[in-house]
Formats: sequence, C-alpha cells, structure tokens
Amino acid sequence: MSSISIIGTGNMARAIGALAVAGGNQVEVIGRDQSKAAELAKALGGGATTGEFGAVPAGDIVVVALLYASVVPVVTRYGDALAGKVIVDISNPFNSAADGLAIPEHISIAQEVAKAAPASASVVKAFNTIFGVVLAQARPLDVFIAGDDTRAKASVAEFVESLGLRPLDVGGLHMAHWLEGMGLVVMGLARHGIGNFDFALGAAIPG
Amino acid sequence: MSSISIIGTGNMARAIGALAVAGGNQVEVIGRDQSKAAELAKALGGGATTGEFGAVPAGDIVVVALLYASVVPVVTRYGDALAGKVIVDISNPFNSAADGLAIPEHISIAQEVAKAAPASASVVKAFNTIFGVVLAQARPLDVFIAGDDTRAKASVAEFVESLGLRPLDVGGLHMAHWLEGMGLVVMGLARHGIGNFDFALGAAIPG
Repeated sequence: MSSISIIGTGNMARAIGALAVAGGNQVEVIGRDQSKAAELAKALGGGATTGEFGAVPAGDIVVVALLYASVVPVVTRYGDALAGKVIVDISNPFNSAADGLAIPEHISIAQEVAKAAPASASVVKAFNTIFGVVLAQARPLDVFIAGDDTRAKASVAEFVESLGLRPLDVGGLHMAHWLEGMGLVVMGLARHGIGNFDFALGAAIPG
Repeated sequence: MSSISIIGTGNMARAIGALAVAGGNQVEVIGRDQSKAAELAKALGGGATTGEFGAVPAGDIVVVALLYASVVPVVTRYGDALAGKVIVDISNPFNSAADGLAIPEHISIAQEVAKAAPASASVVKAFNTIFGVVLAQARPLDVFIAGDDTRAKASVAEFVESLGLRPLDVGGLHMAHWLEGMGLVVMGLARHGIGNFDFALGAAIPG
C-alpha cells in the first residue's frame, strides 16, 4: 500500500485516483479549487481525503496531474513542502498542434521539475504515454517510468503495480525527454495509424 | 507484392530479407562487399538477386539497412541512382552508450536522408524500434512508420503487411526524430525494465 497525494482534479487525476483507491492505497486529492478536490475525493470514496493546496501533502508519493505548463510553477510554489517526497510528473508538453514539443530540446518537464523541487525530493516520470480514457478502463497496461533515484523509482513501481498495471523502467530521468516524445508518437498514432484513442503502447511480443 | 532492394548484409538486412522472401516479394540484396551480398541472396532463396553497389537498385522500395553513420553517406553516394525510389531508413543513431542520440536535436537520420536523396525520391522511417533478433522470429509485430509522402508511406505499409507485420503510421517525417528516440526507449527497456532483448513495442490494450 502506498500513501499518495494527487495534485489536480482533471481526467488523469480521476483515473489514477480511482485505480489507486481500488488498489487499496491511501489517497489525498489536492486542488487549487478546494471544492473540486472535495468533490473528486468524495467520488473516489475509499477514505480519500482532501488536502490544502500548497501545504505539505499527506502522501509519500505526490502525483502532479496538471497540464504541463502548470507543473513547474506549482512545484516551485510548493517549495520545501515537497521535501522528501517522490514527485511523479505525468505531463505531456505538446505544442498547440500536438505534433511537437512546446519545450526546448534537451529539456523535459520531469527534469525541470527536478530542478525546481527540493534537493531531498525525487522525481519520476510516469503515465504520460497513456490516455486518461484508456487508464480509466483499468485494463492491464504498461506504464513507462524514468528516474535517477532507484528507491523512488521502486516506490512508484510498487504503486503502479497496486493499480493492476505493469511498471517498465526505461532508465534515468534524462529518458523523460524521450518518454515525452513517445507521448507525441501516441498522439500521432491516434490521429494517423489507429484512428482512435483506445489503445496504449506496451512492450510485448504479440501473437 | 513489392519489389525491394536491401542495401546491407547485416542482421537487419537478413531479417527483413527473410520476411520479404517469405511474403512473396521480389528481393535484391546489395552490399559494398559483393560476395557477402551474393551469400545473403543465396541464403534468402526465393529468387533473391544481387545488385551492384551504387547502381540503380532494382526495387521500387530501397531499404537502407546500414549502421546509422553510413546511411547518409551511402544515400549521397547513390545520388540520382535513387531517383523515384521509396527509401526506407531503419537506423538508430545511438551514441556510444546507447542512452542518447549521437545526432543534434531537431535532426533525425531519416530527415537527413531526405535532404541527401534526389527530389523525386521519398523517405519513410520504419523498423527502427524492433531488434533484429525479434524481427527474425517473424511473430506479429508493430512497425511504426513516419513519412511526408502518403503514397510512399502506403507502399511501405503494403510491404510491411506482406511481412506479416502491422504498419502503424505515426505521422510526418518530422516524427522520425521521436521514433529514433523510441529506439532509445527500447534499448533502455532491454537494459532496465525487461532485462532482455526479446520484445517489441506495440500499440494494444493488453488483457
């Protein structure tokens, strides 16, 4: 069992929160709009609580489930309140056409989060290659994770397994850049190669 | 049925060539070392022929199955001999540690090939996320393809289907950059998340 806080009240927050409750984790929901957070916590059930935006989160793992442009500002705003936490960045920094990244090369949101977070926090990239709608279906899926802190990565992997999903370690946090690029590939597939959003990338030998 | 030429005599050339022959395609093998090309053509069987390095290839589709550093030089050397051809770049421009790309950002080998090739040629990125050893097992796999020329992409897709594999269009040739990054993710998974090389990325909802 993990103790997690989710900052955000959108589709990804809801999907991850629902799986987390179903997996027996202690879940806290945090929103800039406290009423939305309370509403989501109630909808999740399972003893999910709400926390105060900007205060020390209850969870050991803090999933920042915000649109990419808000992620670094919010982590910066939190500052030392995130000391010792495992911060999970799930964002996709798509440009407006969603056919390229909106951030400079050699950069990833996850790495920027690591710069903005307290030194005692660890950052793990995860979940960004899965559409919320697919995650909400709760079927077995692969969750690609990247991070420099082995212990933090192990705790996120344990959390991912509690959701009924398979964590797949792709390496250090610098790989977040390429996972964010895989987010673009997923979007490209939805538009060109598959024609819908009802799929996820995974590692397998089909057949 | 497609008519393809494969430039190269290594593992990927052999794996693609074997699937191509099994799929009923006309296959030509081209090597800088003519005896190696002849040996591979003989091993492939199915009427596979050998061509002269640098001369106009027999195939409508030309698969450049060389290490990444040789791809642009060879396409440049071919010059107008590739006029009107569909050139398939399968390369992974890994750095020596295979944890980053050896090429500048905003660049992909496929896009560099497009610059080096005759204007009447079209370039498609494909096959780079599949290890040769997995391809050689000939089980159903997903082949991610990217390219700007719809007709060229359709012809490569048809060829991929003849191999018993599933082509998945991820968008324009600029996506080759992110497919080359996915090659890094595949390598990272082999080292960290999976622990062996016996897998391929694909799009699915497992379970």
